[in-house]
Amino acid sequence: MRKNSDPPSFAETTITVRYAETDQMGIVYYANYLVWFEVGRTAWCRARGFPYGDLEARHGRMLVVAEAHCRYKAPARYEDEILIRTAAGSATDKVICFVYEILNRHSRQLLATGESTHVVTDRECRPARLPAEFLKLFRSHSEPTGKAPRARSA
Amino acid sequence: MRKNSDPPSFAETTITVRYAETDQMGIVYYANYLVWFEVGRTAWCRARGFPYGDLEARHGRMLVVAEAHCRYKAPARYEDEILIRTAAGSATDKVICFVYEILNRHSRQLLATGESTHVVTDRECRPARLPAEFLKLFRSHSEPTGKAPRARSA
Amino acid sequence: MRKNSDPPSFAETTITVRYAETDQMGIVYYANYLVWFEVGRTAWCRARGFPYGDLEARHGRMLVVAEAHCRYKAPARYEDEILIRTAAGSATDKVICFVYEILNRHSRQLLATGESTHVVTDRECRPARLPAEFLKLFRSHSEPTGKAPRARSA
Amino acid sequence: MRKNSDPPSFAETTITVRYAETDQMGIVYYANYLVWFEVGRTAWCRARGFPYGDLEARHGRMLVVAEAHCRYKAPARYEDEILIRTAAGSATDKVICFVYEILNRHSRQLLATGESTHVVTDRECRPARLPAEFLKLFRSHSEPTGKAPRARSA
Repeated sequence: MRKNSDPPSFAETTITVRYAETDQMGIVYYANYLVWFEVGRTAWCRARGFPYGDLEARHGRMLVVAEAHCRYKAPARYEDEILIRTAAGSATDKVICFVYEILNRHSRQLLATGESTHVVTDRECRPARLPAEFLKLFRSHSEPTGKAPRARSA
Repeated sequence: MRKNSDPPSFAETTITVRYAETDQMGIVYYANYLVWFEVGRTAWCRARGFPYGDLEARHGRMLVVAEAHCRYKAPARYEDEILIRTAAGSATDKVICFVYEILNRHSRQLLATGESTHVVTDRECRPARLPAEFLKLFRSHSEPTGKAPRARSA
Repeated sequence: MRKNSDPPSFAETTITVRYAETDQMGIVYYANYLVWFEVGRTAWCRARGFPYGDLEARHGRMLVVAEAHCRYKAPARYEDEILIRTAAGSATDKVICFVYEILNRHSRQLLATGESTHVVTDRECRPARLPAEFLKLFRSHSEPTGKAPRARSA
Repeated sequence: MRKNSDPPSFAETTITVRYAETDQMGIVYYANYLVWFEVGRTAWCRARGFPYGDLEARHGRMLVVAEAHCRYKAPARYEDEILIRTAAGSATDKVICFVYEILNRHSRQLLATGESTHVVTDRECRPARLPAEFLKLFRSHSEPTGKAPRARSA
C-alpha cells in the first residue's frame, strides 16, 4: 500500500522536438508545452489501461480543460528528446487534475513543470459525472489509500 | 455575364503573421500556408453569403481534403500582413476545387500559390452530394455561364 | 495622471477562430489560447508604438516566457469572432508581465483569462536588461505613478 | 549496387496522433501531414547518419521548402499509430526532393502520399550549394548508379 508520503505515480513517454515546434527564437514555442501535456495525459491513460478516446467515444464523457499552468525553466530545441512525466493529482467524479514534468531525456534537466484541471462533461460540454470505473482508475494513483493495483509508471 | 476568359473571382482576407507561425529559420513554417488556405476558404464562403460551418452543422456535409499543393515563392515573416486570395476552381456536387494566392499585403509580392481538392462527405466521412443550393454558389463563380447573382469578390 | 485604482490599459485586437484551431471536441484546442495571448502581446506592442520584432532584430532583446497561466471559462468555436484584450502587468528591466482577457466579440461573453511572465534575454537566451526606452513604454501603462513596482494586476 | 529498378530506400518512423492534431471533423487536420513529412525528413537524415540540425548549425545551410504536395487517401484519428516512410527523390547541390508515404501502422492502410522540394540556401535564405559530403548522403540512396540525376521517384 502506498503511503501519504509516497511520490505520485508518473507515467512517462518520450517525444522528439519537431521543427514545426520551434519559433524564430530558435527554441520550442511556449504553447507547445500544453500539447506535450496532452501527450502526457494520453500516455497516462494508456498506462492505466484505457485509451482516453474510449471515454469520449464509448462513454460520452469529455475532460474539458478548465485551467492550465506552465512554468518554463529551460528551453527545448529541435531534435531534443523530451521526457514527459504525467501524474494524476486530485480526482473527483466532476474534476480531475494532472501534474507534469518536462525533462530533457538525456541530460535529465528539468525544462518545465505544469498542472491542468479538467471538468467532466458530456458531449455537449455540459457538466457531467465520471463513470465510477474510470474514477477508480484516476484515484488509485492519486489517493494513496486506494488498494487498486498500481500500474507501471512508464 | 462573365465570359470564359474572365479571371476567377477571388475573395480576399488579411491576416498578420503570428510568432507561433515562425520556425527557427526565422520564417513562416511551411505547413501554416495550408492553414492560411483554410482561412481563405472560410472567407470565400462568407463572401458568397454562407458560413462554411452551416454546411456542416445544418446540412451534415463536410468538404474533406483529398489533395493539397503549395508552391513557395518567397518567405513570410513575423508581423508581415498577408493577403490571402481564394477562388473556386471546378465544382461538382461531389468534388470542389479551390485555388489560392498568398501575397505580402503591402509590397504585393507573391509569396505562394496553391490548390486544394475537396470531396463532399457526410458526417461519417462517407462520400455524399452537395445540396443544389450550395453547388450553385460554388459554380456561380467558377462556371462563367451560370446566371446566379455574383456576390462581391472580397 | 492615472491613479492606482485605475483599471489597466488594455490593447484590443480581433481574430476569427480557424478550423485548424478546433479539435475533435468541436471547440478550440486549449493550447491555442496561448497563441492568442501572443497575438495580444503583438497588438499591445503595436498599440504602444513599437513592433515587438524590433526589440529582437534591432536591440537583440527577447522576451522569453517564464510562466503562463490560463483559466478557461467557456468554449470558443469555429468562425467565432474573438476579442483579445491585453495589458501590461508589472514591468522591470528584467521581468515583464502581461494579463489577458479573451471574449466572444459579439456576445461579450468572457471565454478565458490569463497571465504570462517573460524574462528579458539576449539572443542566446541569457538574462539581459530591457533598454530604458522600452521599459518606459511598458511602465507608462502599468506603473502610472512611477513608484515601486506593483504586483501583477491579475 | 542498387539498380534503377530498385525501390527507393525509405526511412521509417512512428508517431501517435495527438489530440491537438484533430479538428472538429474528428480526424487529423490536413496541414499536420506536412508536419509529419518534416518528422519523416528528420528521421531520414538520422537514418543516413547526420542530424539535420547540424546542416544548419555547423554548415550554415538550410533546406527551404519550395513546393509541397499531399494526396489524402483515408483519415487518421486520435491515438492512431502512424508510420511515416520517407525517401530521397532526386538530389543536386541546389535542389533536394523527398517522397513520403503515411500509413496506419497496424492496418498498414495507406493514408496519404506526398512529395516536397527543397532549395539549398544560406542562413539568410539566399540560394547556396550543399556541401559535397552531404550531397553524397542524399545521393547514395536516391542515385545508386551515380549517373545523371533521375527524375523524382514519385
